[in-house]
Amino acid sequence: MNFKIKKGRFLEELSKASKIIDLKSSNPSLLGISIEASVDKIVIISSNGSISIKSSISKKDSGLEVNEVGNILVKGRYLIEILRRIDDQFIDITLIENNLIKVKGEKAEFHLNILDHEDYPLIGFRENGNKFTISASILKKAMTQTLISVDENNKKLSLTGLNFSVSGNELNISGTDSYRLSQKKIILSESLERLDINVPIKTINEFIKIVSDKDEVEFIQSDGYVTLIFGNTIFQSTILEGQFPDINAAFPKDFNSIITLGNKEFAKVISRADIPSEENSSTVVNLKLQGDTIFIKSNIQQIGNFEEEFQEFDLKGLDDQNISFNSKFFMDAVRTFDTKVLEIKIIDNKKPILITSPEDHGLVQLVLPMFTN
Amino acid sequence: MNFKIKKGRFLEELSKASKIIDLKSSNPSLLGISIEASVDKIVIISSNGSISIKSSISKKDSGLEVNEVGNILVKGRYLIEILRRIDDQFIDITLIENNLIKVKGEKAEFHLNILDHEDYPLIGFRENGNKFTISASILKKAMTQTLISVDENNKKLSLTGLNFSVSGNELNISGTDSYRLSQKKIILSESLERLDINVPIKTINEFIKIVSDKDEVEFIQSDGYVTLIFGNTIFQSTILEGQFPDINAAFPKDFNSIITLGNKEFAKVISRADIPSEENSSTVVNLKLQGDTIFIKSNIQQIGNFEEEFQEFDLKGLDDQNISFNSKFFMDAVRTFDTKVLEIKIIDNKKPILITSPEDHGLVQLVLPMFTN
Repeated sequence: MNFKIKKGRFLEELSKASKIIDLKSSNPSLLGISIEASVDKIVIISSNGSISIKSSISKKDSGLEVNEVGNILVKGRYLIEILRRIDDQFIDITLIENNLIKVKGEKAEFHLNILDHEDYPLIGFRENGNKFTISASILKKAMTQTLISVDENNKKLSLTGLNFSVSGNELNISGTDSYRLSQKKIILSESLERLDINVPIKTINEFIKIVSDKDEVEFIQSDGYVTLIFGNTIFQSTILEGQFPDINAAFPKDFNSIITLGNKEFAKVISRADIPSEENSSTVVNLKLQGDTIFIKSNIQQIGNFEEEFQEFDLKGLDDQNISFNSKFFMDAVRTFDTKVLEIKIIDNKKPILITSPEDHGLVQLVLPMFTN
Repeated sequence: MNFKIKKGRFLEELSKASKIIDLKSSNPSLLGISIEASVDKIVIISSNGSISIKSSISKKDSGLEVNEVGNILVKGRYLIEILRRIDDQFIDITLIENNLIKVKGEKAEFHLNILDHEDYPLIGFRENGNKFTISASILKKAMTQTLISVDENNKKLSLTGLNFSVSGNELNISGTDSYRLSQKKIILSESLERLDINVPIKTINEFIKIVSDKDEVEFIQSDGYVTLIFGNTIFQSTILEGQFPDINAAFPKDFNSIITLGNKEFAKVISRADIPSEENSSTVVNLKLQGDTIFIKSNIQQIGNFEEEFQEFDLKGLDDQNISFNSKFFMDAVRTFDTKVLEIKIIDNKKPILITSPEDHGLVQLVLPMFTN
């Protein structure tokens, strides 16, 4: 095998591939990145068992010249380190022995031991199934807004990821840890019959790291897998078994008090109430609405307590509420809005609080109250 | 106790004080920062047992108003967290009970538990002794250039720090781990009879973090202590016992080959030779000078090997050398020069290599060769 390629382009794809590699993998060949050089392109594959990535580099943009086709399995970390330190625009890679490649810049020359490509598992990438197309920037933002409610270590497996459900042209992305709930509705430009899968939070995090905002993403559900195709990359993951709870039933519809206030101003008050405590135990924040004032109080174990009054808000409904919640959960929820205004919707001190914004219609954050004396 | 002060100025000094605090300290009162409010200033003291800092904030620049004098001992971490989250320009601190202070912004109000100031040790700051004055930027740079050769875990105690020795108006700052040696000579604007102390590397690192480039530093040796006074801060540390080796004797004077080359260009070649190996074991780099070419080779355990030719250099003396060294040591030494040109001075493959630059007369880096077959 021998090919010449623009260093920058090659390094970019290798870095993407190396991100998902699990250094603790029990299968040593999964520590490698597979590079397949065919006549007119290079295919780069990596996998950690549950998530797999396949990228192609064509001649366009990459200055690729394949002089001899072939497959190699390299330890990505070292090849990446070497390429980073080479200053030249092009590099040349040659298989010189069964287990050795030569990586050559203009003057620098590395001999690098490689793994046995025959040991690499055959990974099937599923490009067909129930699918829709969405802009990467919209999808990434929605994932970021909803993953805050997901607990990777939840005992209920289906809750350790985000639920994606489509009916008609409405996509709902939902996450919950049973104490809070995040949901984002997105209207798709196409309709499909039915799609309903739970995607592991690790997959979501890796996808967010790799995808670029300008991409269009094809989101494909097939038997046991989700496949995300964007740019020259196929990103595939196993999905979570189990039924996601019917969370639409969890959202209350009628509220006794709806408070409209400045997002930034309120977030600052809550962040002051959320001073981390000595044992990182969670802080309880109390919100008391009384006439034209909101009193925010918190008690930080061992450390002390906090109090602040807040009067810049509009109110619809009852001007008398007294409700407590986990400050971290509330802060996480508030932070997902990049809007000017927030709406805090309260029924009473035993029912969930809802946070929404008129500027982000699709997003709802729900936090259960805490009972305190 | 009650005072009002500009938040930014107060936070700046508290952050400085908190940097040296050792959270694992067995003396719980050393977890605190002492704040003493007198009529016209505030004094902030912190210590980890070996290093102590004392800063004063006067009325100038700080808007300080002391309404009631007194001393408190606060857990710095929490007070800093709170101040960071307060948006107001001024804050007001009041001792309201024996173990409780009130920290108040315009609207936000925190009650914070504090420690008992009576438990805080009395720390003597030594402002007199054998001393010289030096610009902080020059001192910091010299420390950074020489500390690379210091091994904090060296078995010989006196080698776990930098040696500062003055005779006449010449200051020598030296560090060594017995395999390499860094020395920087600085000409002072004053002469003193004799100063010779070993300052722990931890002290050096903390000092570098705290001092600002624009400061002038008074460097004071007193019995068992070094004191550095700059700006409004007194920084004091215990020193290391034991005799520092006579390193001036270690520097060879005559060389068989002196190679002059571009710093940046050569550093890049050496960095390519210094690919980290699997077990972070050190890589041996071989430099072979033959006629008009330098061959740089390295062999990275388990990973592979590297080779590059280098021809852009001037040579005085013998054009035939073959010497090997630890790539990390060599790389560290090369990186301390921010000059255009480097001089590599070689005797033979058993004698130390010297690295200097005509643009930084005071700095010498020495690296012992390694014997390889």
